[in-house]
Amino acid sequence: MANTAGLSRRRVLAGALGAGGLGVLVACGNQVDQLQSAPYATNAARNTGGNAPAAAGQAVAATPAAHGSAMVGMDPNAIGQSAGTAPASGATATPAKDWQMMNQMHAAGVKAFLAQPKTLRGGQRMAYTMQDGVKVFNLTAKPVQWEVTPGQMIDAYAYNGVVPGPEIRVTQGDTVRVILKNELDEGTAIHWHGLLIPNAMDGVPFITQPPVNPGESFTYEFTARNPGSHMYHSHMNSAEQVTKGLLGAFIIEPKDKSAYPTFDKEYTMILGDAGLGFTLNGKGFPATEAITVNKGEKLLVRFMNEGLMIHPMHLHGMPMTIVAQDGYVNTPYKCDTVNVAPGQRFDAIVDCTEVGTWVFHCHILSHAESEHGMFGMMTALIVK
Amino acid sequence: MANTAGLSRRRVLAGALGAGGLGVLVACGNQVDQLQSAPYATNAARNTGGNAPAAAGQAVAATPAAHGSAMVGMDPNAIGQSAGTAPASGATATPAKDWQMMNQMHAAGVKAFLAQPKTLRGGQRMAYTMQDGVKVFNLTAKPVQWEVTPGQMIDAYAYNGVVPGPEIRVTQGDTVRVILKNELDEGTAIHWHGLLIPNAMDGVPFITQPPVNPGESFTYEFTARNPGSHMYHSHMNSAEQVTKGLLGAFIIEPKDKSAYPTFDKEYTMILGDAGLGFTLNGKGFPATEAITVNKGEKLLVRFMNEGLMIHPMHLHGMPMTIVAQDGYVNTPYKCDTVNVAPGQRFDAIVDCTEVGTWVFHCHILSHAESEHGMFGMMTALIVK
Amino acid sequence: MANTAGLSRRRVLAGALGAGGLGVLVACGNQVDQLQSAPYATNAARNTGGNAPAAAGQAVAATPAAHGSAMVGMDPNAIGQSAGTAPASGATATPAKDWQMMNQMHAAGVKAFLAQPKTLRGGQRMAYTMQDGVKVFNLTAKPVQWEVTPGQMIDAYAYNGVVPGPEIRVTQGDTVRVILKNELDEGTAIHWHGLLIPNAMDGVPFITQPPVNPGESFTYEFTARNPGSHMYHSHMNSAEQVTKGLLGAFIIEPKDKSAYPTFDKEYTMILGDAGLGFTLNGKGFPATEAITVNKGEKLLVRFMNEGLMIHPMHLHGMPMTIVAQDGYVNTPYKCDTVNVAPGQRFDAIVDCTEVGTWVFHCHILSHAESEHGMFGMMTALIVK
Repeated sequence: MANTAGLSRRRVLAGALGAGGLGVLVACGNQVDQLQSAPYATNAARNTGGNAPAAAGQAVAATPAAHGSAMVGMDPNAIGQSAGTAPASGATATPAKDWQMMNQMHAAGVKAFLAQPKTLRGGQRMAYTMQDGVKVFNLTAKPVQWEVTPGQMIDAYAYNGVVPGPEIRVTQGDTVRVILKNELDEGTAIHWHGLLIPNAMDGVPFITQPPVNPGESFTYEFTARNPGSHMYHSHMNSAEQVTKGLLGAFIIEPKDKSAYPTFDKEYTMILGDAGLGFTLNGKGFPATEAITVNKGEKLLVRFMNEGLMIHPMHLHGMPMTIVAQDGYVNTPYKCDTVNVAPGQRFDAIVDCTEVGTWVFHCHILSHAESEHGMFGMMTALIVK
Repeated sequence: MANTAGLSRRRVLAGALGAGGLGVLVACGNQVDQLQSAPYATNAARNTGGNAPAAAGQAVAATPAAHGSAMVGMDPNAIGQSAGTAPASGATATPAKDWQMMNQMHAAGVKAFLAQPKTLRGGQRMAYTMQDGVKVFNLTAKPVQWEVTPGQMIDAYAYNGVVPGPEIRVTQGDTVRVILKNELDEGTAIHWHGLLIPNAMDGVPFITQPPVNPGESFTYEFTARNPGSHMYHSHMNSAEQVTKGLLGAFIIEPKDKSAYPTFDKEYTMILGDAGLGFTLNGKGFPATEAITVNKGEKLLVRFMNEGLMIHPMHLHGMPMTIVAQDGYVNTPYKCDTVNVAPGQRFDAIVDCTEVGTWVFHCHILSHAESEHGMFGMMTALIVK
Repeated sequence: MANTAGLSRRRVLAGALGAGGLGVLVACGNQVDQLQSAPYATNAARNTGGNAPAAAGQAVAATPAAHGSAMVGMDPNAIGQSAGTAPASGATATPAKDWQMMNQMHAAGVKAFLAQPKTLRGGQRMAYTMQDGVKVFNLTAKPVQWEVTPGQMIDAYAYNGVVPGPEIRVTQGDTVRVILKNELDEGTAIHWHGLLIPNAMDGVPFITQPPVNPGESFTYEFTARNPGSHMYHSHMNSAEQVTKGLLGAFIIEPKDKSAYPTFDKEYTMILGDAGLGFTLNGKGFPATEAITVNKGEKLLVRFMNEGLMIHPMHLHGMPMTIVAQDGYVNTPYKCDTVNVAPGQRFDAIVDCTEVGTWVFHCHILSHAESEHGMFGMMTALIVK
C-alpha cells in the first residue's frame, strides 16, 4: 500500500514535469524572470500530503502529523527519478541528491508565486444591506471544490463559496444580523469567536440553539460590543467543518479609534493546516497572496489561527509590534516571530522601512518548505 | 489489522447504541431536556482513541498524534452503519452523512454533561494534620482504574486514589511535610513544580534523592516560600507516570494578599492529554465538571498543564484577564484564548457579567469535538 | 516489519547491556558516585527514536511525532527482557515492571551526565579576521558524522564541522562579512534570522539570491544594526538542512549596554528536535552540557529554537526573568517555564540564589525522559 502510494506519487511528479523536465539544469541567475517555466505541481502535491489533485478527496484525510512526517522523512529518491523507475534494490547508502532538479523545483515555485497566479480568493469584505438600522449579512454554507494551489482542487466546505468566508466588518455599536443557510449534508451552526453576545446567539448546538439542519436557515442578531480582530466559524463537528473551510474574519472597528495605534494598510492572515493542508487564507504557496506596501507605510497584520496546530509566524527584514491580542489592546512589544495558537488573534504593526521582497512564513519549517521547494504557509511582504 | 479494528469499533458503537438507536431522528428543540436518552458511549470511546472500555488497557498506548489523526481523517462510514455491515466495496465517493445520527450523538453528549454525571472526582482539597507547627500531608501512589468518562475505566496511576491527586494548599511561610508511600510496581519520586525549595527536596531520582522504590516511603519537608499556582508530580519515568495520573495542584496562598487581584470564587483546571486521553481534571467530556457562578462574581481560573501537548484554552462569552504566570503576578492582559504549554500555569480572572452556559474548551478542535459530538477537553462556565 | 524492528531493538539493548547487566539491582544511595557503571546506550537509542547507532542513517527519518509516540506507547516488555527472548505469546495483561532494571538505566544516564562525557561541542565563539575595518568570518557547510550522545554518530550537516555552528558575535554597528563555502551535495544559502539587513543579503534562494550550489561560495556583507540574540541558518530545503545541523547563534552586543539588564555569565541554549533527535546545542542527554555557576551570580540564558516543535523549557529551583524576546528588550516578567516556538528567542536572567543541581529540561516530558531514564532535552544548572 505504502509502496503503491510511493509509485503513484512518482508517476504524478513525472507526469507533471514531463519527461523533458527531468534532470534539466535550470539557469539560475539573480533574476527569477530568466527561469524557464518549471513545474510547481509538486508543491501543490506537497501541500496536501503528497496526494495529486486527482486524489484530492483523500487529501482531506491527511493529518498535519502525517504531513510533517512526510516532509522530514521523505525519500530523497523521489526527486529526480525517471517515471516508473523503481528505487535501486538493496541500496542502503543515501544516494547523491539531484541538486539541479531541486533548484529547478525551488525556482519554479518562487516564479509562480511572484507572478501571483490568478485564483479565486476568499476573505473579501462582505456587502450588507441596511434594514431598519440593522446591518444584514447572508451566509450560505455548502460543499465546494476549492483551489488550494494552482490546479489543485480539494473537497471543502465554504461560506458563500470561498475559503476563508467573506470578511464581516462592522463598527462597534452596530446591530448585526446574519442569516445562515445550510446547504451541507450535515447540521451546522456559527460561533462568533471573540464577540461578546447574548448566550442564545453563541452558536453551540444543543447548548445555545438547535443545530441548523440541512436545508434550514437560522438568524443570528446581536450588537457589536467589543472591537477587534475576531472570527466566525462552525461550532458543530467543528474539527472537520472548520478545517474544511467554514471560517472567516469578523472585524469590529472601534467607535473611538484613538485608543488603537495608527496604520496605513491592513492585511488579515488566517492560518489553516488540516482539511485543506497548510494554508494562509485558504491558499498554499505559490497561490498565497503577496502583501505589497510602499516604503514608510505602517502595515497592520491581523493574525488569526483556525487550524489544529500552533504556528510561529516569522517575518523577514523588519520587526512586528504586537499591539492587541484577541482584540484587546495590550502593552506593545516587538518580535519577529509571533506564535499563534488555534483560536488566538494577534494584531501586529510593521513599520515598513526596508525595501525588498521579504518572505513571511510559519517557522515550523516543515509547514513551509520541502526538498521540492517552498509550499504551504509561505508568502512575502513586498516593500517598494 | 486496521480493518479489524474498524469493524470492532463499529460493533462497539452498535452495541452501545442498540439496534433501535440507529438511524432514529432525534427531536431537537431548543430544550435539551426533550432529548431522548441517547448514547454518549461513543464520546467515551473517542476520548481514548476509539478504544472501548474493555480495551482500556490499550488506550494508554494511544498517542495524542494518533488520536488527533483519527479525528480528522475518520471514516464517515463509521457513523450510521448498521452493526456488522461491511463498508460498501468499491465505493470511492464520500457517502452522504447520516446527519440525524450525528445530531443524536452530539445531543446525547450535551445532555449527559448538563446532567453532570455522578463520578468520583480528584483534586479535592487535602486535609492535613499539624505536628509541632508542621502541616503534614500523606500521599500514596498506586495503580487504580480511573473512570475518565461515564463507564469508561482506564488503567491509571493515582495519588490517594484520585486523578488529579488531592490539592495541597498552604500559606506562604508554612512548613510543609509530605510523606509519600509508593505502592506502584516501579520507583517514583515527587517534584514540587514551581516551588522554591532546598535541592534535596526537589524530587529528581539519582540527582537529588534515590528513587522511592516499590513498598518504600519518603518524607519531603520544606518551607512554602513563593505563593502561587504550582503543581506536584512524579519526576521518574515521568512521561508515563505523570500522564497516567501522578499529578496534582500545589497552591501557596500569599501571606499578604494585597498584591493579588481580588476574586469571589476559584477553579483549578489541570489539562491532560496522553495516558488518560484528552482531559480536564482527569475527566473527559461529558464527565468534565461544569463551573457555576452567579452573575457579577469574579472567577479565578488556575490553568495548569500536565500533558504532553500545548492547549489553547478558549472561553466563550467573556474575556479572561491573565494576572499571573507560573505563580508570579504579571502586568494584566486580556484575552479569550490562553495558550498553556506543559509545565506552565496561568491565573485568569473572569468578570462573570454575561448570563448563560458558555462552553470552555481547548481550541485545538480535534481535542474537543468529533463527528460523534463533543468529547475530551470541553466543559462550560454557567453564569446564573 | 514492526515486529522485526522490535526484535532488533531488543537485541541492540541486550548487546549494549551485556548479559550480566540484565536484572542486576543497582545499589542506589544518595551518592550517584556509588553507582556501578551502567549502560546509557539505551538513552542514546531513545534519542533518535529507538534506532541503534548502526542504524543512524535511518534515524534522520524518525519524525518527532513518531518519536513521541514511541515514548508514550512503548512496550513495557522492552525493559528487562533477556536477549533474544520473544514476547510471551498470548499475554494480554501488562506484566510487572522490572523496576530494578529501570532504576539502573535511570541511574546510569545521570552518572554519565554528571561526569560530563568528553565530546566535541559546537557553538564555540568564532574567530574573525579584520580586513579594512570589516569583521570577516568563514563558514563551510558540509556533511559530517555528529556524535549526538556518547558513541552515537548521526548523519548531519554542519557549519565548520560542528552542531550548532560556531557562534558569531559582533557589536552593534560593526560591518560583518561572512564567506559561505558549500561542500554539500545540494544548494544552500544562509538567512540571518532576526537581523535587519539589506534584502539582497537575506539568504532566500531565488528571491534574494541564487542558491549557493555545491562547490560554490557566496559572500554576505552587512552592518549589524539591531542588538540581541539572533540566529543564522540555511533557508534552502530548510526543513531538512536546518534540522540536520545548519544553524548557529548570531549575537549582536548592544553598543550602549545601559538599556540591557546586567548579568555575570551567559549561556546560549539552542533547541532541536528533528534530524538529530531531541537536542540542546546539538547534544542529547547525557551528552548535554551542564551549566555551572557560583551562588549569587546572575546567569543570562539565551533560548533559541531551531527545531520543528515548540518546547516549554522548565528550570527547577529558581525563576527566570524574561528580559528580551527576539532581541527586543521587553517589560520583564517572571516564570519557571518558557515556551519557545521555532524561530523565537528569549533572553532569560536567572538570579542563582539556590545552591544545588537543578535539572533544566523541556516539559513535554516525552522529550526528556522515558522508561529508560532521562534523554534528549535535559540538562542541569549547577549552583555551587
